[in-house]
Amino acid sequence: MSESFGERVRSALHARGPLCVGIDPHAALLAAWGLTDDAQGVREFGLRTVEAATGKVAVVKLQVSFFERFGSRGIGALEDVLGAARAAGLLVIADAKRGDIGSTMDDYARAWLTPGSPLEADALTVSPFLGVGALDGTFAVAETYGKGVFVLAATSNPEAEGLQRSTGTTGKTVSASVIAEVSARNAELAPAGEWGSFGFVIGATVDWTQAGIGAFSPAAPILAPGFGAQGATPTDLRPRFGEMSEAVIASESRSILSAGPVDLAEAISARAAEYLEVAGV
Amino acid sequence: MSESFGERVRSALHARGPLCVGIDPHAALLAAWGLTDDAQGVREFGLRTVEAATGKVAVVKLQVSFFERFGSRGIGALEDVLGAARAAGLLVIADAKRGDIGSTMDDYARAWLTPGSPLEADALTVSPFLGVGALDGTFAVAETYGKGVFVLAATSNPEAEGLQRSTGTTGKTVSASVIAEVSARNAELAPAGEWGSFGFVIGATVDWTQAGIGAFSPAAPILAPGFGAQGATPTDLRPRFGEMSEAVIASESRSILSAGPVDLAEAISARAAEYLEVAGV
Repeated sequence: MSESFGERVRSALHARGPLCVGIDPHAALLAAWGLTDDAQGVREFGLRTVEAATGKVAVVKLQVSFFERFGSRGIGALEDVLGAARAAGLLVIADAKRGDIGSTMDDYARAWLTPGSPLEADALTVSPFLGVGALDGTFAVAETYGKGVFVLAATSNPEAEGLQRSTGTTGKTVSASVIAEVSARNAELAPAGEWGSFGFVIGATVDWTQAGIGAFSPAAPILAPGFGAQGATPTDLRPRFGEMSEAVIASESRSILSAGPVDLAEAISARAAEYLEVAGV
Repeated sequence: MSESFGERVRSALHARGPLCVGIDPHAALLAAWGLTDDAQGVREFGLRTVEAATGKVAVVKLQVSFFERFGSRGIGALEDVLGAARAAGLLVIADAKRGDIGSTMDDYARAWLTPGSPLEADALTVSPFLGVGALDGTFAVAETYGKGVFVLAATSNPEAEGLQRSTGTTGKTVSASVIAEVSARNAELAPAGEWGSFGFVIGATVDWTQAGIGAFSPAAPILAPGFGAQGATPTDLRPRFGEMSEAVIASESRSILSAGPVDLAEAISARAAEYLEVAGV
């Protein structure tokens, strides 16, 4: 069996620190980089960012919507960027937030997590709106191939609070229930002391107490958007995530990508060093 | 301004009845139809189904995951099927269940709802896990172009109950809050007596009382999977949906598609007639 995704992330974060470069080629950034607002532009944007990130960070995250905007040609560009990132030894998260039921969801899992699939990534973000149980087929595909899943748990956008802080019959918030249900699956599969392969999306600026969530086990990677342009800084990492800090993948996109193509590699190096210092690895 | 999606659906359902053919080319059906399990197979499957449905039903629904499984070539096939269906005068729902925040979600809306986009559909299914407010950019794109949005509200899969029946500070279930928040937006935009363009996904076998939901206004289309293979029948439509029956789009896929390519047109005609009889339009 291949090494689990959880353990691969753990090694990679230990070696390179928590910074994850978010590859978000939205229209304004394409213009700022002097690239065309089309499939060729997002391909070029993605390939240059992969090149600049290689050897400097453990993880990159590709925001699928910015490629999907251009239909099949945009998805073709995404395939090229995914392939280049994986070939460069980066761990690649496809940020697609897919969520459906039964065989429909299973096919999303096959699309993104099956070795040899044109859209193969190392991990996929998914939505639990249809229930964590609806993701069991996805977890099974991931486990089979040593891939990872990041389940949306607690996001930092204010309009999410009403839903994610609703409470079920157990008194837990939706966010807490998602973490508990996914953690139970990690506990079944991950050997003692190892990280689970089914992680969470928890915004960097989320107040854990207000969200009704706390430290969890087994440890599992936390994909944390909200660093950089959205307000959280490297020094916020330990105070905000406490005993879970080691598991955080700190995702920044605009704050780094706005350096432009020429200065990008240096910007990534500098920011990665800031995180390494506070992470103390 | 173009006619609203809500009013277009209303006219189309009145003319052809509630049956919606779900175009779900999963592997088992491709094999049963004698088609290859690849992008060419799903293209052929989709085009044949569109041809068989043309003139017989108001709406078709394309399940995106079954195309996405084949990466950019699968999405290219989806573009061809979407284009053929729209050219045939069918209302086309892209069942993609996308859900994200801010500019990311806006780009999904642009991908699926902008005239001239390669993936242009008439309506898109979306997930409210990040809050109904996170969909406001999507609602704006839809309104501008006379397109529709179907927000996941109450699904019939048992593993969804814990989350969707959680309650917020107002005492409403998640499902009820989604319906209330989206309906408020319909009320702002739809002239009195007209249907809203932002509809809901409510499973045909959902118990409305248990889900904490009830009749809503303004009227807006209800995309109801769960007819056919999943258990609900045409005669269930009125008892289950009561005063909202007129707004139901009854989606069936496997039950119809299993007729095979030769008998498909006849199967669609027969089933559409059954629905028309009970719908009494």
